[in-house]
Amino acid sequence: MPLIVQKYGGTSVGSVERIMAVAKKIILAKSQGNDLVIVVSAMSGETNRLVSLAKEISDPPNAREFDVLLSTGEQVTISLLSMALEAQGCLARSYTGAQVHILTDSSHNKARIIDIDDKKIHSDLKDGKVVVVAGFQGVDEHGNITTLGRGGSDTTAVALAAALKADECQIYTDVDGVYTTDPRMVSDARRLEQICFEEMLEMASLGSKVLQIRSVEFASKYNVPLRVLSAFEDGPGTLITIENNKMEKALISGIAFSRDEAKLTLLGVEDRPGIAAHILAPISEANIEVDMIIQNKGQDNTTDFTFTVHRNDYNKSLNILNNLTESLGVREIVGDEQIVKISLVGVGMRSHAGIASTMFKTLSDEGINIQMISTSEIKISVVVDEKYLELGVRVLHDVFGLQE
Amino acid sequence: MPLIVQKYGGTSVGSVERIMAVAKKIILAKSQGNDLVIVVSAMSGETNRLVSLAKEISDPPNAREFDVLLSTGEQVTISLLSMALEAQGCLARSYTGAQVHILTDSSHNKARIIDIDDKKIHSDLKDGKVVVVAGFQGVDEHGNITTLGRGGSDTTAVALAAALKADECQIYTDVDGVYTTDPRMVSDARRLEQICFEEMLEMASLGSKVLQIRSVEFASKYNVPLRVLSAFEDGPGTLITIENNKMEKALISGIAFSRDEAKLTLLGVEDRPGIAAHILAPISEANIEVDMIIQNKGQDNTTDFTFTVHRNDYNKSLNILNNLTESLGVREIVGDEQIVKISLVGVGMRSHAGIASTMFKTLSDEGINIQMISTSEIKISVVVDEKYLELGVRVLHDVFGLQE
Repeated sequence: MPLIVQKYGGTSVGSVERIMAVAKKIILAKSQGNDLVIVVSAMSGETNRLVSLAKEISDPPNAREFDVLLSTGEQVTISLLSMALEAQGCLARSYTGAQVHILTDSSHNKARIIDIDDKKIHSDLKDGKVVVVAGFQGVDEHGNITTLGRGGSDTTAVALAAALKADECQIYTDVDGVYTTDPRMVSDARRLEQICFEEMLEMASLGSKVLQIRSVEFASKYNVPLRVLSAFEDGPGTLITIENNKMEKALISGIAFSRDEAKLTLLGVEDRPGIAAHILAPISEANIEVDMIIQNKGQDNTTDFTFTVHRNDYNKSLNILNNLTESLGVREIVGDEQIVKISLVGVGMRSHAGIASTMFKTLSDEGINIQMISTSEIKISVVVDEKYLELGVRVLHDVFGLQE
Repeated sequence: MPLIVQKYGGTSVGSVERIMAVAKKIILAKSQGNDLVIVVSAMSGETNRLVSLAKEISDPPNAREFDVLLSTGEQVTISLLSMALEAQGCLARSYTGAQVHILTDSSHNKARIIDIDDKKIHSDLKDGKVVVVAGFQGVDEHGNITTLGRGGSDTTAVALAAALKADECQIYTDVDGVYTTDPRMVSDARRLEQICFEEMLEMASLGSKVLQIRSVEFASKYNVPLRVLSAFEDGPGTLITIENNKMEKALISGIAFSRDEAKLTLLGVEDRPGIAAHILAPISEANIEVDMIIQNKGQDNTTDFTFTVHRNDYNKSLNILNNLTESLGVREIVGDEQIVKISLVGVGMRSHAGIASTMFKTLSDEGINIQMISTSEIKISVVVDEKYLELGVRVLHDVFGLQE
């Protein structure tokens, strides 16, 4: 009998009505001959309510106790969903993270899963029960409750699927799959039947919020077939899996973009070894993530150094650099908060030259100036003025035939 | 160092402000040189919210899952209180029932405590921590979450005090102790410094809602000194303990009463062996609790049979009896919903004759007709018309000098 792990997020279980609807979906899947393990998040709004309570008392709250608090959110959902299943005649059994011993390290609020005890689950499945597990939470070796941090329920689902050697891990969300690009921006964006892990990682890291990066990495590492589907309508969704021969042989799978970019340029930096580290060390010490980095050697003995950060970190970064001006011998620091990043993603581009030049020519034909370029094996990203975002995404979607 | 178990009920921890106030009380008690284990209930209103959610889904909800749901209420409180303590510089550590292995039987929604693992708690206390334990919940031998039923947090506190051999178990409530009678009825009712377990049991069973009977029984069985105090104002409260020499040698400790009484009388019942069982069996099968029972042999071969029930069960009882009329050969069934019970309670009456006659004479002097009488070693109860309740309590309070 196929074993499926299904995960339902906070919106999907956000009310008693929604929980009843999810129970119906589960019962249908069971009647189709599947063994089912269900992972659920807290009902939407519940985690925020708990966070507010904690912050009224202490901000930041004690990390261990914060996990004790937050973990109640998913515990409420597992019990209500199991009741709904039982009330409809479907045997069900709920488990907290601690009860199925989802063993994590002791990093409260951002713990990592080490091991899962699958004995109870296998035994319940053998008894014909649907097993309902609280997402987002675990327990450390001392019995302390831990939580996995943002998107943790996806990670729980994938980890359970890996531990149980499930045939598929289905992530139910409020979208019906992964698209070639954001359908709100390009009306003929197309849902992908299939996408490989590496592509999904690039898509996810570029603002496509369908799945948490961490859960995709996890699925990739343990080779768990992952499917994104809508919790609200029927449909096959998008299967995320390892690259294989049956896969659509598209050059490009999708176009991702990010609006939250800002760039900083140091002009006339003295060009000597170690200068990049000297500039970026204080930035990373301030917990600011640097994305793209470009260094252009000038004609004299100086260089221009440019990097991008999240727009929220722009002012903080600028302050740090201004304090460095003297020690770096910088002529001038300039910045731009009005930039965006557009990326082509596709494993197909590995074996095809000419993708990059088609991309650049297409943008240039529209008068879109490319400010920065960065490439990886399966991605080409460009930074452009934010006013060109929609135009750029649309013409690229078109020229690479993604609507077909 | 004295070890105190303190229990705070739902009203005492009903808001963030109240939780902060409780934290201050705990820190004060700790600064006075006590080791402290704290037991808390769910924030007031939270349990009702959870019950409503469950009943929207399924009524009655699956018993196992209902416990998973309800237990989150106390889990929220332990985390918030521990955060509040930590934020004020007091080391604290929260535990769910499962985490300190409050082992119960598997009777979901009304489980009984079998054992408690005190290792973690003793180790934390040694480290100078305040230990905060979720009341009302435990775990069965299979790792399922259980709850103890109404008033369960009091029972958790007493069980912990017994297991840890605590010096005192303090129950913080919204009243400042046990009174000679209800102060809302008799303005010069007096708070008792001390009362013994048996008296407290009689008081509790007669509507004095300060403590759950079960927790008093538990405390009595394991000889845990129990103190009732106000969570909102300072004061010594009332100590409930075994009878000892230092105890006030009052004849009467208090006057309890119950408004929720109703009586049913079967007139002209054929007087043969087994008739009482024949009458009462269908009543108890309907889960109706019978309190006082009186049988008066008449002059012919018939008898009059009277018993009292909770007023809510009056109509149900009447219907059951009406169905029995024929098989019992009853002449008539009469009932009265407008009765109350007034009880004198005191271990002192064991060795003093004349208490009963003083009671009866005092009531009769006021023109109060006594309808039923029942006595135990430390209690005399009378049933009277409800219009005499306040007058009766007041004159008895006065004649036995309880205000002094």
